Amino acid sequence: MSSRVLTGITTTGTLHLGNYVGAIRPAIAASRTPGVESFFFMADFHALIKCDEPDRIARSSRAIAATWLAAGLDTERVTFYRQSDIPEIPELTWLLTCVTAKGQMNRAHAYKAAVDAATAAGEEPDANVTMGLFSYPVLMAADILMFNAHKVPVGKDQVQHIEMTRDIAQRFNHLFGQGRELFTLPEAVTDAEMELLPGLDGRKMSKSYDNVIPLFEGGSAALKDAVARIVTDSKLPGEPKAPEGQALVTIYDAFACAQQRAAFRAALRGGLGWGEAKQQLVALIEGQIGPMRARYDELMAHPERLEAILQAGAARARAMAAPLLKQLREAVGLRPYTSAAATAKAAKLDKAALPVFKQYREADGRFYFKLLSAGGELLLQSSGFEQGRDAGQWVARLKREGSAALSADAPVRREGSDADIAAALTAFQEEG
Amino acid sequence: MSSRVLTGITTTGTLHLGNYVGAIRPAIAASRTPGVESFFFMADFHALIKCDEPDRIARSSRAIAATWLAAGLDTERVTFYRQSDIPEIPELTWLLTCVTAKGQMNRAHAYKAAVDAATAAGEEPDANVTMGLFSYPVLMAADILMFNAHKVPVGKDQVQHIEMTRDIAQRFNHLFGQGRELFTLPEAVTDAEMELLPGLDGRKMSKSYDNVIPLFEGGSAALKDAVARIVTDSKLPGEPKAPEGQALVTIYDAFACAQQRAAFRAALRGGLGWGEAKQQLVALIEGQIGPMRARYDELMAHPERLEAILQAGAARARAMAAPLLKQLREAVGLRPYTSAAATAKAAKLDKAALPVFKQYREADGRFYFKLLSAGGELLLQSSGFEQGRDAGQWVARLKREGSAALSADAPVRREGSDADIAAALTAFQEEG
Repeated sequence: MSSRVLTGITTTGTLHLGNYVGAIRPAIAASRTPGVESFFFMADFHALIKCDEPDRIARSSRAIAATWLAAGLDTERVTFYRQSDIPEIPELTWLLTCVTAKGQMNRAHAYKAAVDAATAAGEEPDANVTMGLFSYPVLMAADILMFNAHKVPVGKDQVQHIEMTRDIAQRFNHLFGQGRELFTLPEAVTDAEMELLPGLDGRKMSKSYDNVIPLFEGGSAALKDAVARIVTDSKLPGEPKAPEGQALVTIYDAFACAQQRAAFRAALRGGLGWGEAKQQLVALIEGQIGPMRARYDELMAHPERLEAILQAGAARARAMAAPLLKQLREAVGLRPYTSAAATAKAAKLDKAALPVFKQYREADGRFYFKLLSAGGELLLQSSGFEQGRDAGQWVARLKREGSAALSADAPVRREGSDADIAAALTAFQEEG
Repeated sequence: MSSRVLTGITTTGTLHLGNYVGAIRPAIAASRTPGVESFFFMADFHALIKCDEPDRIARSSRAIAATWLAAGLDTERVTFYRQSDIPEIPELTWLLTCVTAKGQMNRAHAYKAAVDAATAAGEEPDANVTMGLFSYPVLMAADILMFNAHKVPVGKDQVQHIEMTRDIAQRFNHLFGQGRELFTLPEAVTDAEMELLPGLDGRKMSKSYDNVIPLFEGGSAALKDAVARIVTDSKLPGEPKAPEGQALVTIYDAFACAQQRAAFRAALRGGLGWGEAKQQLVALIEGQIGPMRARYDELMAHPERLEAILQAGAARARAMAAPLLKQLREAVGLRPYTSAAATAKAAKLDKAALPVFKQYREADGRFYFKLLSAGGELLLQSSGFEQGRDAGQWVARLKREGSAALSADAPVRREGSDADIAAALTAFQEEG
């Protein structure tokens, strides 16, 4: 059986070369592994937690979807969808919300960090916490469990959320599975060797350091401009250069084969000027990114094509999500009134639908019992007993033996049809 | 304009005569008020919070739906649906979750009560709190705002939740409304005169006191049995009786007109026996409940009819919910990539989609500028200036005047088509 791998794509911000090398490229490569069934989704419900700028949300989602497709995500092979196109996900979120312990959310890292920050600033602990931030591990659990993913590639900061997902899944299975495993327990996959690309200044490439090389934005000119700003030492052309520790070389490596890497190092040691080296780097990157950028520009210029791809992905995802959700609804008790289970169980549970023996004492001081149908109709009426115990023993015997106990000398008068009486007594034997 | 009134129906447990008199009958009467547009929904998503017995959830929902219909809810007139049939509701719940402050949920009565109980028992404060219990005011807000209800009849313990709904709605309107009121602020309607029916022992009729008279369950026999157990004083037939403070009389009143009430009191004062009085009470109730019970039994025997009614209600509710949700998704930024707003705003936001002037100094010591298209294509290339200021002034003039500034003696060389250059320069004028 194939292994299901699910990857959530953040839909805020724009992407740079570090995102491509560290996340997009390896994820797309992994999706081509035989025996792997990949799910990639645009996590736009999550984006709402951090961002209340609607235009930015819309713009980012579109640009990032186009980026992944341009970078080679094969939608024939993988299921690629927007989270917000799958109404089954928020519905599952609520089902999971009902089995998630609040104490577990109290311990989530992201929440605790927000509380620590507020406390340090002298504010109320929850001053800056929305319910979105607080409960997003439940949404994440729904993302994963909706497709019963086996593996979820995540950063180390997200491992805790996968643990939470496992706990929630286990609890749900326990409460509602009746022995079946409704949910697969997912595993976090953290890639220790995730490639971190340095930025222009040699620190990790990150928007917060303002040291990024854009991926597609601004075209080849922007790429060239950014590469021109990569910090190097001040050696002149002709002087031998040490490739070690140069951001320029590390970035080159990320796009080069072994042979190219060796040649580039040799050239630098041999005196290749930084300006020339930068031109070679631009050419190397452009050779790989250029064709993707053309596809990107094409997709951005044709939002209707992009939209059609996402709609097809949503249809494929929902074809899997809907049957599972149906099963889950059934399991928790949200059932059409006509469902076989509802009808059968209801009949069993409905005490009003069972006949009943009533024991009582009359004004004459004697003890009686009567058998009433489910509808309240009188079926059997006993004569009076001196002792309540005797009435009780007869009730027990009728429940145990059914109509067989109704011999001619039984101390009861038939008030209903023989068939109704027999059916009512049979019900006790089935119940017992 | 009609006023929208929304009533949530708890779908756990079974109903007794107190529920009928205190809740069902007045709500159905109110739904017949002219100018009122009523929404009644089976709150089965809420039921999952308190109950993890799926069969009971399913059974209760069915029985309670049948009860309301049997009691006279007119589905031609009101919109009657199961909450769980409206996928727009959990989706809206997530949108609202993202704008709800966690601090507000910390103050919810039901949550605080659970914390107090755990603390008193020496447990962790959140020991018995699920995320369902903690976040259910957000679900309730979605129930109400999904239909932009004006009025929500609630018990006093629920008034706080309506306040929370107003806060959430206000915050959403503020963040995403752009001046429009996306949500109506609902008002709580608490009926101070809600009729509380006494139970068999004179205390409020309640399942927790085990003093209830069943509504439909067990048929007329169960009604008769229960009435027989109403506690009275021990006066014998013929002795004058004081009607005041007798549960029997209060229950009688709930079903009697003024004339009947007076006659009943007079008969008791005149010596009517309690046994006979109970028979009169049974007859009075049965006269009103009996026909409903027949409809109830009919609906319970035909789950497919019940299901069809609920499906029709869901279709009607979704016809209102879906367009609103679409508008809300648009407002928060969850937009189809083809939406007009997405395209227009994206073009505005997308700096990469704008052409750009670049100024720089070459190895010859002279100052240059060039105009690049949005895609990074070279459109104009300046000649070299002695002073950087001169290059800057030309850039400013081209931005201001557009193609008009491109006379034959302008110090630039055309590298792109005239159309592309004109379009690029026009973009600056529009931007300015």
